[in-house]
Amino acid sequence: MTGKGLEPVRWRNRMLEVLDQTRLPARLSYVRLRSVDEVCDAIKTMKVRGAPLIGVVGAYGLVLSLKNIRTNDRAEARRQLRRYADALIQTRPTGVNLRWAVERVFNSSSHAKTVSSLKDSLESEAEAILKGELESARKIGEFGAPLLEDGDTVLTHCNAGALATVGYGTALAVVRAAVEEGKEISVIATETRPLLQGSRLTAFELAHDGIPVRIICDSAAAQVLARGLVDKVLVGADRILKTGHVTNKIGTLPIALSAKFYGVPFYAAAPFSTLDFETDPSRVVIEERDQREVLYFKGARLGPRGVEALNPAFDITPPELVSGIVTDVGVAGPPLGESLGSLAGRVLMVSR
Amino acid sequence: MTGKGLEPVRWRNRMLEVLDQTRLPARLSYVRLRSVDEVCDAIKTMKVRGAPLIGVVGAYGLVLSLKNIRTNDRAEARRQLRRYADALIQTRPTGVNLRWAVERVFNSSSHAKTVSSLKDSLESEAEAILKGELESARKIGEFGAPLLEDGDTVLTHCNAGALATVGYGTALAVVRAAVEEGKEISVIATETRPLLQGSRLTAFELAHDGIPVRIICDSAAAQVLARGLVDKVLVGADRILKTGHVTNKIGTLPIALSAKFYGVPFYAAAPFSTLDFETDPSRVVIEERDQREVLYFKGARLGPRGVEALNPAFDITPPELVSGIVTDVGVAGPPLGESLGSLAGRVLMVSR
Repeated sequence: MTGKGLEPVRWRNRMLEVLDQTRLPARLSYVRLRSVDEVCDAIKTMKVRGAPLIGVVGAYGLVLSLKNIRTNDRAEARRQLRRYADALIQTRPTGVNLRWAVERVFNSSSHAKTVSSLKDSLESEAEAILKGELESARKIGEFGAPLLEDGDTVLTHCNAGALATVGYGTALAVVRAAVEEGKEISVIATETRPLLQGSRLTAFELAHDGIPVRIICDSAAAQVLARGLVDKVLVGADRILKTGHVTNKIGTLPIALSAKFYGVPFYAAAPFSTLDFETDPSRVVIEERDQREVLYFKGARLGPRGVEALNPAFDITPPELVSGIVTDVGVAGPPLGESLGSLAGRVLMVSR
Repeated sequence: MTGKGLEPVRWRNRMLEVLDQTRLPARLSYVRLRSVDEVCDAIKTMKVRGAPLIGVVGAYGLVLSLKNIRTNDRAEARRQLRRYADALIQTRPTGVNLRWAVERVFNSSSHAKTVSSLKDSLESEAEAILKGELESARKIGEFGAPLLEDGDTVLTHCNAGALATVGYGTALAVVRAAVEEGKEISVIATETRPLLQGSRLTAFELAHDGIPVRIICDSAAAQVLARGLVDKVLVGADRILKTGHVTNKIGTLPIALSAKFYGVPFYAAAPFSTLDFETDPSRVVIEERDQREVLYFKGARLGPRGVEALNPAFDITPPELVSGIVTDVGVAGPPLGESLGSLAGRVLMVSR
């Protein structure tokens, strides 16, 4: 079994333990999160990151917020819970899984008749989300593996692996499933500035699983594609619109443009919970993160004093650059709007 | 006068002094190069970098190689000189100015009747190259400035400024000349991994000149273009083919693809000596630099041990993505092959 031992989140004794991803690959250490505030902080500082994983962590964050709620009035308790839900959602505004998971846990509170029964409803809903994500990752691998051929080299960006989820990964779930089918797959991972999730996390977890991986600077992806070194591009996603627009880590868009130019298929892989059927592409909020992420490295200033940086954390890849979207309910191909719609129909059928 | 005080190379008392660009922006310190070996090493380790500047430094490197030549036989002296010329050219195989400058100095040796007169011929030829580059940069600015409008934001990559040349710069010469004409221009500089010439050098020299500059990660260029924050893209070049293919710092190609996709003009600026009318695009040697540049930062390892990196230093932007090439003899527009040819005709006319 691949991915063994990399458990990015654990719920133990009503406490959340998360693998501190800011310290990888140098240190494998866990942080205990005892309150909703600590959860918000861990998400903001990217100790936990990866769209599916922050969904799970946000879900448990809402469970932890119950500690702060001391009223016996059910309606008042739900009002307070709503405020914590909003605070959790605001920690990372671009991704959609966080909102989806937090809303799902919040909605489960409507079934609880008393304040004291709230805790059980919320906790079992969070647990269901965690289990669902594990299953999702497995399914993404299953649906995506046929896209990869024996001998393929896959280019990936950021970390869409076991460390971004609670199991197998999303983009890397596809790689892992193909490898488990006996295919030889090697990976080229972009380092992913400014926080280096590619060199720190993707390279780490693939090396851990014995899957060959090489690192490149983000800016080298086009050249590596031009040289014919890549057979497929496979990335994760933080929000996929019904039009097929893929919001993902900054730097995904230029890779998609380069892949299109050199005729290499570009796939995004994400659980269906990443789909946002409401928002218009022009209305997606692109999180602008602290410019110090760009200007400093381990405390050392990279540029001259007084010069500022722009640090958008995501970009949006339009559907004409996307060859397919691998989800836990199937693969959507072009035209993406249509095929995502029919996948959504399938999800509704199953959930009824 | 802009660029004042930034003198990246000096020839004093038959010794070459170069600004150590690996230590910028933290320290402004000069290294003395006393031998051709020291010159080769300074180019390889990128203490000096930037296509036009390494041309000048390579030219003086050949002058310094005379110290090693102890024969009185003119033919033997030229044979030895040839070997040093080849060693200098091999330090950075992709750029064309280095070869051009070294060959020019080498060829000047054919006029010398005696070994002792070699020194004077070579030294005056190197000096002519240095003066020519100063003049070139000024002309590039003059020809390019009309491309920029008052209020424009220019996106640039790597460092094509005063620090890459001996004067005004190439891409940044255009910005400086436009600013001197009274236009308000602001710059977005990509940091340029792995060696951060953008945040370390471009931001440094523009801030030094009082031109507004902001830094972004390389991977954010597409998103910044998508958001409409950029009016023109302007980069330098290490080798321009007669077809209009532009070889430049790794990461130029994805910016050109993004600029094309979002309808933003993409210009390269370089002295005419950067043109290579011989080589076919498929035959351009892309320098592969030490993978430790990608895997380490200031001694700290970024990725897990045992994982390797690819580190191509350049990429090639095809002519269909290039809106124009600004040279010291004029601006070539599409179709580039044709207009570069007619600029070449103009150069031949002048040099006759």
